[in-house]
Amino acid sequence: MRVGIADTTFSRVNMGAIAIDELRKHASVVIERVTVPGIKDLPVACKNLIEKHKCDIVMALGMPGGKEKDRLCAHEASQGLIMCQLMTNTHIIEVFVHEDEAKDESELAWLSEERTREHAVNTLKLILHPKDLIKEAGTGQRQGFSDAGPARR
Amino acid sequence: MRVGIADTTFSRVNMGAIAIDELRKHASVVIERVTVPGIKDLPVACKNLIEKHKCDIVMALGMPGGKEKDRLCAHEASQGLIMCQLMTNTHIIEVFVHEDEAKDESELAWLSEERTREHAVNTLKLILHPKDLIKEAGTGQRQGFSDAGPARR
Amino acid sequence: MRVGIADTTFSRVNMGAIAIDELRKHASVVIERVTVPGIKDLPVACKNLIEKHKCDIVMALGMPGGKEKDRLCAHEASQGLIMCQLMTNTHIIEVFVHEDEAKDESELAWLSEERTREHAVNTLKLILHPKDLIKEAGTGQRQGFSDAGPARR
Amino acid sequence: MRVGIADTTFSRVNMGAIAIDELRKHASVVIERVTVPGIKDLPVACKNLIEKHKCDIVMALGMPGGKEKDRLCAHEASQGLIMCQLMTNTHIIEVFVHEDEAKDESELAWLSEERTREHAVNTLKLILHPKDLIKEAGTGQRQGFSDAGPARR
Amino acid sequence: MRVGIADTTFSRVNMGAIAIDELRKHASVVIERVTVPGIKDLPVACKNLIEKHKCDIVMALGMPGGKEKDRLCAHEASQGLIMCQLMTNTHIIEVFVHEDEAKDESELAWLSEERTREHAVNTLKLILHPKDLIKEAGTGQRQGFSDAGPARR
Repeated sequence: MRVGIADTTFSRVNMGAIAIDELRKHASVVIERVTVPGIKDLPVACKNLIEKHKCDIVMALGMPGGKEKDRLCAHEASQGLIMCQLMTNTHIIEVFVHEDEAKDESELAWLSEERTREHAVNTLKLILHPKDLIKEAGTGQRQGFSDAGPARR
Repeated sequence: MRVGIADTTFSRVNMGAIAIDELRKHASVVIERVTVPGIKDLPVACKNLIEKHKCDIVMALGMPGGKEKDRLCAHEASQGLIMCQLMTNTHIIEVFVHEDEAKDESELAWLSEERTREHAVNTLKLILHPKDLIKEAGTGQRQGFSDAGPARR
Repeated sequence: MRVGIADTTFSRVNMGAIAIDELRKHASVVIERVTVPGIKDLPVACKNLIEKHKCDIVMALGMPGGKEKDRLCAHEASQGLIMCQLMTNTHIIEVFVHEDEAKDESELAWLSEERTREHAVNTLKLILHPKDLIKEAGTGQRQGFSDAGPARR
Repeated sequence: MRVGIADTTFSRVNMGAIAIDELRKHASVVIERVTVPGIKDLPVACKNLIEKHKCDIVMALGMPGGKEKDRLCAHEASQGLIMCQLMTNTHIIEVFVHEDEAKDESELAWLSEERTREHAVNTLKLILHPKDLIKEAGTGQRQGFSDAGPARR
Repeated sequence: MRVGIADTTFSRVNMGAIAIDELRKHASVVIERVTVPGIKDLPVACKNLIEKHKCDIVMALGMPGGKEKDRLCAHEASQGLIMCQLMTNTHIIEVFVHEDEAKDESELAWLSEERTREHAVNTLKLILHPKDLIKEAGTGQRQGFSDAGPARR
């Protein structure tokens, strides 16, 4: 199994390194990493990880800024990542942490690490243990902040 | 006939299980199920259900959160689902329940179940009895809350 | 000539039946009709009308609701219809009537019928008499409400 | 050289005729013209001009209305035109005049003519004299209203 | 190595010339330049630089105006650039400077030059020294204004 990691120099947290650390804790997979300037460079970087580097799944890690223009960039990047998945029939786990989700720099660093680690686990489940995800269906999982849990009637 | 079911661990209701229950009440179809982390993972999951698992139709079930960012995620997922359909010439019935459509947790659970069951019936009509849908054309059908009904001059 | 008609059960007016009635008044064309649950199901339905049922042109008829979420659905459907046209090199005439364009149920029914009939005529012009449309270029045509007319210097 | 012209019956100015008049003043090119109902019909019309009528470049001319819904239509049409260009490796010069850009009908007519004529010249430069455009790089050109000019430090 | 440069006559700064100047300082690469009227013409221009002129990477340089309509144009152009990258498996470094990012004409000229030069360096790193970018991952790099730096816990 080959897992691709694509992250950015724009991000204020080394999300790629965290993802690799977490993946290594759980499985022995081959890892290919690329770093690009910003989130809008991620779609084609992921496509190359899949098509040239033969990755079976990719994590796309980024940290959009807190301004309106940044939200639009994140939207464009997300659309590109979805299109890339449809063109390659391969999952890309998008791990975006918006700068304005955290109340300060310290929480931003914490949130980025938590979300990245939880999504690294999801990434492995998707390619190695997909049936485990069915058991979690509808349980209100969240990555980073606490889970919402199931809605009760 | 093979029906694909794709749902999420993010959802607070086990929409996949409800869909399968309803489908089984009405027809004996083969069912393939996958669960992914969030709604943005649904488009490629559906594509794989269609191309690798040979599903004739797919239900894509998800529960977007109530915040602005969540609405944008739902928008991106919906665009991906439409593109996936165009790439495969196969219907994907999108069943999204926005957390803010319901006034509380209990209504959210009720609405998710109702909408999922009604769309499971639509799914079967589309592949087994498409002419039945023509009879309902323009009748203001809604899934979950009550029907709007036809507009009278 | 084969004209495809795709409409919805969500719509509160039987736009498909109106379109067929108008087409029959003007030309003897073969008509293929499908009805789907909602407007987001229209793009793939149109693609199938074009590719499986060999339609030369399609009318996509729908009635988006008046809420913000409904407007976004209409946007997603429209993007899908444009992509479908680009993939097939075939015109799809989109006839959408937004519920909030009309002041009441009665005007909604009237507007839906008017716009559908006028676009049915456009549909026939596009495939049978395209030169007639050049004569109307820049004349401020509207479908449903009254024409805007040409702007005078 | 073949230049395609696609315009609409929705527009309140005969932009197609103006474009053709301007093109003829500057070069002897073959012109193919189609008129469609509205701007959302332009992408596939342009694709047919390129693929069926072998145009080397196309002008897509339209006049979106001034309401929010109209702006969204223009956005959808623009996305379709960009996708069409990427699918065909052929430039399409979009000439859209929004009804609310002008203060009255007379200015609207004037603006539509000016912008169309200036873009007709751009169209010819792109296919006949692309090096001329490099000389104008960064000079703040505008089509219709007066040029912004270069920014000075 | 061949680097494509696509810029616009709409921009108020000759970003293409600046990019070429910076590239030449750092590496001896072959440069192909095209100038188009506006940012929406960039996607297909980049596609032609990649497919016809065999560029290994492209810089797309533009200066969207400060109005709402201009922001939408930039959004459409960005989506097209991402799609172009996915169709060609080739990076396009988007360098957009929004007119309203700067407080006056002088800052606009300064910002355009700075951002263009910094992204020219990124462009070379991506094709010549991709490992250098991994060392900068998560360091909060910005192009033009000062870097945000890493977030500290």
